[in-house]
Formats: sequence, C-alpha cells, structure tokens
Amino acid sequence: MKKIKVGILGATGMVGVEYVDFLINHPWFKISTLSGKKSVGRKYGEAVKALSNVPREVGDLEVIDPDPRKFDADLVFSSLPSEAAREVEREFIDHGFPVISEASAYRMEKDVPLIIPEVNPEHLELIRNQKKNSGGFIVTTPNCTAVGLVLSLKPVLEYYGIKKVVVATYQAITGAGFPGVPSYSILGNVIPYIKKEEEKVSEETKKILGRFNGSSIEYASFPVEASCARVPTIDGHLEAVYVETEREVHLDEAVEIFRRFRGEPQKLSLPTAPREPIIVTEIEDRPQPRLDVDAGSVPGMSIVVGRVRRGESNNVLKYFVLSHNRIRGAAGTAILTAELLTAKGYIG
Amino acid sequence: MKKIKVGILGATGMVGVEYVDFLINHPWFKISTLSGKKSVGRKYGEAVKALSNVPREVGDLEVIDPDPRKFDADLVFSSLPSEAAREVEREFIDHGFPVISEASAYRMEKDVPLIIPEVNPEHLELIRNQKKNSGGFIVTTPNCTAVGLVLSLKPVLEYYGIKKVVVATYQAITGAGFPGVPSYSILGNVIPYIKKEEEKVSEETKKILGRFNGSSIEYASFPVEASCARVPTIDGHLEAVYVETEREVHLDEAVEIFRRFRGEPQKLSLPTAPREPIIVTEIEDRPQPRLDVDAGSVPGMSIVVGRVRRGESNNVLKYFVLSHNRIRGAAGTAILTAELLTAKGYIG
Amino acid sequence: MKKIKVGILGATGMVGVEYVDFLINHPWFKISTLSGKKSVGRKYGEAVKALSNVPREVGDLEVIDPDPRKFDADLVFSSLPSEAAREVEREFIDHGFPVISEASAYRMEKDVPLIIPEVNPEHLELIRNQKKNSGGFIVTTPNCTAVGLVLSLKPVLEYYGIKKVVVATYQAITGAGFPGVPSYSILGNVIPYIKKEEEKVSEETKKILGRFNGSSIEYASFPVEASCARVPTIDGHLEAVYVETEREVHLDEAVEIFRRFRGEPQKLSLPTAPREPIIVTEIEDRPQPRLDVDAGSVPGMSIVVGRVRRGESNNVLKYFVLSHNRIRGAAGTAILTAELLTAKGYIG
Amino acid sequence: MKKIKVGILGATGMVGVEYVDFLINHPWFKISTLSGKKSVGRKYGEAVKALSNVPREVGDLEVIDPDPRKFDADLVFSSLPSEAAREVEREFIDHGFPVISEASAYRMEKDVPLIIPEVNPEHLELIRNQKKNSGGFIVTTPNCTAVGLVLSLKPVLEYYGIKKVVVATYQAITGAGFPGVPSYSILGNVIPYIKKEEEKVSEETKKILGRFNGSSIEYASFPVEASCARVPTIDGHLEAVYVETEREVHLDEAVEIFRRFRGEPQKLSLPTAPREPIIVTEIEDRPQPRLDVDAGSVPGMSIVVGRVRRGESNNVLKYFVLSHNRIRGAAGTAILTAELLTAKGYIG
Repeated sequence: MKKIKVGILGATGMVGVEYVDFLINHPWFKISTLSGKKSVGRKYGEAVKALSNVPREVGDLEVIDPDPRKFDADLVFSSLPSEAAREVEREFIDHGFPVISEASAYRMEKDVPLIIPEVNPEHLELIRNQKKNSGGFIVTTPNCTAVGLVLSLKPVLEYYGIKKVVVATYQAITGAGFPGVPSYSILGNVIPYIKKEEEKVSEETKKILGRFNGSSIEYASFPVEASCARVPTIDGHLEAVYVETEREVHLDEAVEIFRRFRGEPQKLSLPTAPREPIIVTEIEDRPQPRLDVDAGSVPGMSIVVGRVRRGESNNVLKYFVLSHNRIRGAAGTAILTAELLTAKGYIG
Repeated sequence: MKKIKVGILGATGMVGVEYVDFLINHPWFKISTLSGKKSVGRKYGEAVKALSNVPREVGDLEVIDPDPRKFDADLVFSSLPSEAAREVEREFIDHGFPVISEASAYRMEKDVPLIIPEVNPEHLELIRNQKKNSGGFIVTTPNCTAVGLVLSLKPVLEYYGIKKVVVATYQAITGAGFPGVPSYSILGNVIPYIKKEEEKVSEETKKILGRFNGSSIEYASFPVEASCARVPTIDGHLEAVYVETEREVHLDEAVEIFRRFRGEPQKLSLPTAPREPIIVTEIEDRPQPRLDVDAGSVPGMSIVVGRVRRGESNNVLKYFVLSHNRIRGAAGTAILTAELLTAKGYIG
Repeated sequence: MKKIKVGILGATGMVGVEYVDFLINHPWFKISTLSGKKSVGRKYGEAVKALSNVPREVGDLEVIDPDPRKFDADLVFSSLPSEAAREVEREFIDHGFPVISEASAYRMEKDVPLIIPEVNPEHLELIRNQKKNSGGFIVTTPNCTAVGLVLSLKPVLEYYGIKKVVVATYQAITGAGFPGVPSYSILGNVIPYIKKEEEKVSEETKKILGRFNGSSIEYASFPVEASCARVPTIDGHLEAVYVETEREVHLDEAVEIFRRFRGEPQKLSLPTAPREPIIVTEIEDRPQPRLDVDAGSVPGMSIVVGRVRRGESNNVLKYFVLSHNRIRGAAGTAILTAELLTAKGYIG
Repeated sequence: MKKIKVGILGATGMVGVEYVDFLINHPWFKISTLSGKKSVGRKYGEAVKALSNVPREVGDLEVIDPDPRKFDADLVFSSLPSEAAREVEREFIDHGFPVISEASAYRMEKDVPLIIPEVNPEHLELIRNQKKNSGGFIVTTPNCTAVGLVLSLKPVLEYYGIKKVVVATYQAITGAGFPGVPSYSILGNVIPYIKKEEEKVSEETKKILGRFNGSSIEYASFPVEASCARVPTIDGHLEAVYVETEREVHLDEAVEIFRRFRGEPQKLSLPTAPREPIIVTEIEDRPQPRLDVDAGSVPGMSIVVGRVRRGESNNVLKYFVLSHNRIRGAAGTAILTAELLTAKGYIG
C-alpha cells in the first residue's frame, strides 16, 4: 500500500514534535511537509533541537511557511495556535485539503465534527454538511483537558446516565506549549486559571457527548462545571471528577464498565489505537502523572482512571482520570482520527 | 498582666516550629515547656535546626518527654500525630490541663468542640459537658484542609444557604509534616490521595457548620464531596470549591459577603486575629500558593478567595480558596482558639 | 534632611520590584520616577501585579518611557537589559544624571567603577576620569553571580593571597528575569549554560579585586575559572568555590576572617548595610537557597558561607557561598552603592 | 546456552528495580532469587509497586531474606546499603558466591577490584589475590558520582595526562534511594552536602585510574577536589569538571578523543555495552539531566559530555558530564561488569 502523504501546520511546537514521533514509523502515513512560522527556511531537526531529537530523514526537511500551494500532502494536521488557525486552516480547506485540527478555532462550528474516535465516530457524518466544492473539509479534536474527561464519561453515560459533572483539573505545563508558562510562575506553585479552558471543557464535552440526529448534533444537556488549574508537572493532565448519575452506581460494576470500554478504533484495530482506551488502576494513590502518563499498549494513548469511589449518595460516582495532554490530548487523538477517516474512506 | 505559661506537645515537628514563631513575641502567652519524642534531652534549637532558626531564649530550652508531671504550664498545645495524641492528650486532660489540639484523635467526639474561632465560637460551651473533676478539658481545631473550606463557606451558608459542596484540593507538602512526602514521590508529580483526608474534610465541615442546640451539635446536613491531592508546593492548601446554594447567587454580592465577613476574634481584637479573615483577590489567576499564602495583616491567618464566579445555574457559586496549612490550618488557629478561650475566661 | 529623588530605569522587571521594596521606606531616598518599556502609561502597581504587591503611594505612579527630559530625579538606578542600557544610560549621563547601573553595558569600560561597596570603594575615584561636562557619571555594579563570589574572596585575598579560583554555580531562575526561563526547560532539570556568564564572572572578579593605582585599575592576575548552571530554585545563587592560596590555610582562622570581615558600608553604618556582610554557617548541609537566602540583619544583603574546608593541599580553601541574586546581586548592591556615593558627597 | 542464575541483594530499593528492568530480557542472565529486608514474604511486584511496574514472571517471585543458604544463584548482585553490605556480602563470599557489589563497604579494600568495565578491566586480576577456598569473591563498582567523572577522565588521562581535577556536582534525588531526600528539603532548593560523597569521589577516582602492577593497584597521584550537591532532578548526575593536564589541550582533538573512546565491553560487544560510552553534544546548553539522561544505544549506559572548552591556560580542559545515576552509576555498570566477568571466564 502506498503511504498517504501528510503535512503538519505548526510542526515546530511542543505538540508538533509529538506528531513527528508518532508518524516516523507509521504504517499508513508518511511526513511530506512541515511548516512553522518562526523557523521557515531552517532544517526541522535544527528548529526543534531544544524539544526533541528527531531522526535524520525528518530532521533534514526544510521548514516551510503555511502556504497550501507549497504543500505536497494528501492530508494536513494542524497544531496551530487558535488565532492563526482560523485563517490558515480555512485556506487549506479551500484548497481542497482534508484538515485535522486540534486548534480551537472551528471546534464549535455547527457543521464541524469534534471527534474522539472511541466516543463519537458517527459525528464524522457532519463532514457531508461541509459540502466543499474544493473537496476540502475539516475535522477537529478536543481541548487537551476535555479529551480525558469525555473519554472517561462515555461509558458512564451509557450505563448510568449523567445528570451533572463537576471537575477540577491539575494540568501539566506542556499544555501551554513552549515557551509557555514562565518558570517563576509555576515553580513550587499552582496557577488556578487557564484562559477560556473551563468554558471549553464544558462546551466541548456537551458537543462530543451529544447525539447526531442525521443532520446535526443535539448537545448533551447536563451541566459540566470545571475549575482548571496549572501545576508543576511536565506531562499528563489529572482531573478530579464528580458525576451525578441517573441510575444508582455500583462500584465493582463501575470499574468493569471502564475496563471493558472499547470503541471503533479498537474494533478496527487502527494502528494508533491502544488495546484498552481506559486503564483502571487499583493502587490507592494512583494515577500519578509522572508514573502513569505512558501506561498502556500505545504509550500516551490510554487514559488511566483510579480512586473510583461512590459519593455520599448512591447516584454519585467519583474518580481521578489522567490523560497525556500532548498525545491522547493532542497529536495522538488527531492521528487516530486520521486513521479512522482513512479506514472509513474519507481520505486517500 | 502576668503571661500565661504554655507547653507544646510535638514541638519539634514542622508545625511545632510555627507555634514557636507565633508565641515568641505573644502578648499573653509565654512558652514554658517543649516536648518532642525523638529529641528528648537535646536543646530545642538544635533539635529543629533543619526546619527553623529559633531565637536563643527558646532555642536553649531542653526538649522533655510528654509527661504531664513534668509540664509547668497553664495551657497545653498539642501538635502530636493522631496515634500518639489519643493516649497522651487524655493523660494531660486527666492531670487538669486545658488542651488545645490540632490532632484528629478527639475531633469527632460528641462533647469535644471542633473550633474555628471565626466560625463556631458558641461550640465552646460543649466544654461544660466534659465535666472533668480534674479541671482539664480539650478543644480541637480542624484538619488543615477543612479550615480554609469551612471559613469560606461560613458566610455563604449564612447568606445563601448550602445544599451541596464539591471540593478538590491542591495540598502542599508541609501538610504531611517532616520528613513527610519523599521527594521522589512528588517532584514533577501530583499524588491524588491523602489517607483519610476526604473523610475528615467532609465530616469536620458538617460538625463545625452544625448548630449547637444548648447541649450538643446538630450536624449540617448537606453533602460535602471532597477529592484530595498533594502537589509540589511548600505551603498553602488551594481548593477548587463548587457550592450549590438554596438561594440565587449574585456575584458582586457574593464578593461582598466574603469581604465583610468578621467573627468574634475580630470583634474582640484578639492578638492573632487578622483584620480580614477572608481576603478576596480580583486578579484573574489568583490566589496562588507561593504568592498569596502570607497575605493579610497577620501573615498566614487570612484565607484568600479568588475567581469567584457563578456556575451554569444561578444557584451555583464557584471559587478557589487558599489557606496556609501550617498557620491558619494548624498553629495559628490553635493559638487563636487559645486567645478566644482566654478572653472568655476558660483559661488563666 | 530632604530626601534625594530617585528614578528607576527598567522598574517593571523582576529586579525593578526589589528596588521599590527597598526604597519605599528608605531614610535618604524617595522614588520619584519609574520607567519601563512595555508598560508606559499604565499605573506601576498594575504593571507589576504578577510579581509584587506594591503599596499604593508607589503603585499609583504612572510608568513613563525612559526619556531623561521627563525624569524628575537626583539619581537614576538602571535595571535595564544590556542592549537597551548602552544607549539609554548614555543619554542619562549626557543629561547630567548620576547613574547607578546593574546592567553589563559599561561595567568593563576603563573609567567606569565596578563596585561592591564592601570590597572596592576606592575605585569610585575613577568617576573623576569620566570628566563629564554634563555633571553626569556612571557607576556600575557586578553581575549577580560575581557579587557573592567576590565578596567572599576579598578577605581570602587579604589574608592568604590568591593564586587560582575555580567556581561552579547553581543559579536561581530569577537571575534570568521575567518571563525568563520557560518552565519546560528547568522543571526537574539543570541547564549547564548561561550566556556570557562565565566570562563575566571571570573578568569582573579580576576588575573588582584589582588595585586602583591613582588613575586606573590594575586587574588581579590570577585565573578565575567558572562553570555556570541554572537550577530550579527561585532566589539565591549558590556557588562551589575552590581557591588556591599563596599562604597555607588554617581552617579556624579562615572561618574567623570571613566572620570578621567588615567594609566601609559597615563603618559608615549605611542604611542598607548588613551588620555582617559574610555570615558563616556551621550546619553541615548549609547554606541552602530556600532556607538561607534572607539571612542576616538586612534580608538578602548578607552572603552566607558554609562547608568551609581545606583541599588535599594545605594551600587550598573550599567552601560554598550563597547570595541573594535579586538583592545583594542586584538592587541591594546598587542601593548600597548609592548610599556610599551619597555619604562620600558624590550625590545630593 | 543455559542462562546464568542471578540473585539480587537489596532488590526492593530504587536501584534494585533497575537491575530487574535490565535483567528481565537479558540474553545471558536470569533472575532466580530476590531478597530485601523489609518485604520478606511478600511478592516482589507488590513490594515495589510504588517504584515500578514489574512483569508478572518476576513480580510473582517471593522476596526472601538475604541468607546465602536460601539463594539459588550462580552470581549475586548487591545493592545493599553500606552498613548491611559489610556483613551480608562477606557471608555470601564465604559461601562461595561471586558477588558484584555497588555498595561502598569493600570498594577500597586492597584486594578488591573497583571496576568500570571500559576503564580498568585489568584490575579484575586482583580477584586472584582474594584466594578464597570457598571459591567466592567480590568485585565492586564505584559510587554513582565517581562513575561519570572517571569514565570521562580516562581518555583525557591517556592523551593529555592529568595534574589536577576540580569537580562540582549536581546530583539527582534518586541517588539517595527511597524514601531518600524529604520533599521539604529539596523542592526549590539545593543541598550542598552529601555525606562522605566528596571523599568517595576523590579516593575512588584515584583507585580506578590507578595502575595494576601485577599484584596491586598503584593509585593515581593527582588531587581530585570535589564539591557535591543535591538538586531537584529525578535521574542523572551532572558534573562541572575542570582538569589541569600535563600536555596542551586542543579543543577539536579533545572532542575527538571523547568520541572515539571505546573500552573492552565495546570490543567484546557485551550485551549491555553502549556503542559509544561517551557521547559528545555540541548543543550549547547541554547535557541536561531531563533531556539527555537516556541518550545512546543502551539507555542510561552512555555518559554525555558537553560544553567542552579550554580554561584561561592552554593546559586546562573544562566540560560538563552527565551520567545516569541508577544505571551507569549503579545497576548498569554492575551488570556490565558481570558480563565482562562472564566473558573472561570468572563466572559460569
């Protein structure tokens, strides 16, 4: 099989290098074009040497500017900052590229699927609404904090129904990119604010867990109340989750529904799909970002749930969930989405 | 006025040194006896040199073992670990000492007041139920995580009524004492578990916010759902609080009720009472442990509330609260309680 | 006595706020003008709220641009980055201002004194060589890493003579200003490189410890070999110092010469002079940045020397020295220099 | 080939789990017995769950006490604390076991080889002096800080000759084992003291770089002056090295001699030998512990040298060197030594 050529927008950032890590030995995809605003004209390996050791075959590629006419690609991943994304991604769509974006610019647009492949693959049908003459379209992936939350909520929603979610987060510094958070701000400290994050977690959760009625998404109607904070960890967003359910929760059963959860990527055996999307730890003080962020068969792609317990009411489930913000929360979910699109015939 | 002689049980620990800091220049109290299990016979200054630089007049005191017959004191503070506290504190009570303890051993006993001086001074009347022939009695202060939460909830309860509380914590390492948390466990990490902490936060909150009916405490009846985690900060427990209220919340008003809150210590101008028990910050990314833990007129005694906001419903109030775990959460509240007891004639 | 009006160039940075802290209650000086490139037109308090809580009388001052015609000041402190310093400081000198600068731009110029008030006050006579018709002149203070090293070497040089110095540093993140070092770069890490730092430490040390021969400075001739690294600490540069001496070292004596060292600021009882410029700790694992950075009678102005020991040869002295990089290493030494200039009649 | 059965003394500690990681898929060795003082009777996987996720085949082994009569092994690795090592290792030798120990107890004994396989394999002949009737013998590996230093000094010694070494260290917390350094002591801090470390670095360096004259080791005669400090990093000891050489240093040549250095393990293609024992980085701010500790073909087994530069004299070479303290500095070097012993016929 001939490999699909992929280009990356925003390839020189903290998440950009994660794409490259995943794609270097990918069985279906092959990196053809890398763009990045500040390093145009430099070799890619040189441009990201502070972040990653990139193998020569990719390190020698020249970084180009994000111009669709210069892209030799069947598919484009976008890891652009949101402001840049709005304009640049639009150009790529208009030039006929399938764009898979983790930027927030288009996530909440009516006809744009916001996808976690294990959770709402049926939302991909929205692509048809985009009706581009160009042949281009866009699929988005969620905010890095929403991914872990929503993936863990999916089986809870299916088995128990959800009436309310309250979540507090412990987010790693890489979530803010590079240079990101100044060391003076976070060393020995917690910053209880991340711009627009709480709104994104709430809104995106309701869209992703919404129902596709054949033509549009009917958002989930339960409240999602988030408090987001940055802590001095490198990778891995941890979240303390409180869920009020419609039906009574049984603990052993809850653990089982997490463990047994599988999605379409697992059924299709997509290359980047972890065997278990949700790993449950029973060690009493886990999951911990530094120790568990790479758990599972595809490091960074499984989320880890722990401390599963009931609240004071029988209809309250509480747990902590950890997800790798740069992989499952960004590059990994985008690539898994690309694999799903490929498997379903949207690409290639 | 002759100063009241105070002894300290567990004086050589991480919180013990905070007592000493506060008491060295105290207008009413004078340190007379210091005990500590592992350093018996050593000079106090030598025993705590890794934790604090203690002035000579206290540094030269010899550390003795916790034997009531050797204590020359009108009042005893206990900073003992819980297991030791149960037996040792009992002995001191039986020997006629008033004991103010931050240990958890007796907090939930029916006739033992669990006090935050600004919140429930009327609970001190429970002392009468202790009816000791010895003249000794015990008053306890809450878990370091409960203090900040409950102090911030008190005005919310008074103005809006409370139906439910969900809280997630970001707790500093000094909350675990010394040597406490190994560096390998917490550096660049979060530990989402602190033994028995969630239970304490829940139960103690309901007792402190309970109603004294003339003979006993009727616990508050709303659920308090806690998720407790340790983060790599030195001092200051931060908490993300979600409260469902009985009446509709108005934001400006909510900020005002926090700001205007005063308790009996402020009315009595107790020496260790901060002018404002609750400081509200309007800087969007505060309170932060490293920057705000010492805010206010008596460093470490005010709590700092920030990011006050409504939830998706009009009856939901959300905020972050920061309290100094070794001062307001331990030594400071115990000393303020001693001042209140003195002002009310229970001691001296 | 009427207070001397002082202006600050670069007032909104990490060190700028330290100047303000020191000057707010200064007996001789009064802040009149604050400038800072990015915050022109904003209130000072607002501009630095992420770094410091500034009292209202200074917080309400408007930040202006660094234009000498707008400065109402008898004396100007400069905390500018080096590139900006070269041009801006020149303008202020030309407009007749005495400038005390911690920037590196003019430090190594032939006629510019590079001063640590306790070490080389006689170098101030170089000011006469500056022969400005304008009346303006410049005095510089050393790199934050050189200050602690040189202050500790001074008594060693006087008593034992110095043949060689080898030093390795453990420098705090605030030495790089704000935003400075990205958290991703330094969290759980060490960066063994600080641009031009090793050269500065070497050259400045030789100039400051040089001999003023009546018209110019004859540099010290021993080698100073530095290895500079950044570590994840907030304040306090720690240095591992190895000195080969001309005469045999006796340990008890060496400790005494550190302890007894006093300079002109102590003799003149300048307001910001610490009683002991060099504090010697005998605790075996000190000095430590977090615990000792504020030691002494004027917090941040004393350096702390510890682990004083001999090497394998009798002519080798080894020790660790800690100095507060933002105070003794920057704002504090500049202010002490201003006090010395005032006491000697150069200013006011 | 039948695998050699190995037992581990001190298997449940921070370094113990590194042995297991390396040995699980080892082509020559097979774990047969695990002992550890505090966990006797528990399953190994359970005993170390806070430190490592161990595969089932080893995790199910029962931890036994360190009794030679219970050990089913052809070879014993010892990762015991020094006090315990003196007695326990002696017992194993007396029972006829070959013991490879990273404990300090016997390192400096006259007839005991202290080995870095790339540096002084000829010292293994000292084993003959041990003349045990039992057939048992002991070989030791160096202190974790000495390993990186000595490995980097070896080619310098060969090409330039060495007159003096001054080294300052930035040592990771795992060097102190688990629980090791309390988080309160090291978070945002540096501890400029590690018990007996400076003496070990000095003495061991001279022994390892000493000459085997056919019957004993003649120690190297140059001084080695160390200053050792702990910093808040997880893995990787970084060292700032200053070397005075006998012959003039040329920079490009110095880089080459590091790069070209190979030892007997490389010549013999031992399983755990990295292709390049010394990797030289030319990125200006490297090596960094968090980014480079696992560099090379066998993660943790190569040391990384950077910032290679001359001093003020032509006979001074300066550089930083990074080595993985738990692998090259402990388990890895012990295993590589075992492989060398096996290849040379001492074992099996």
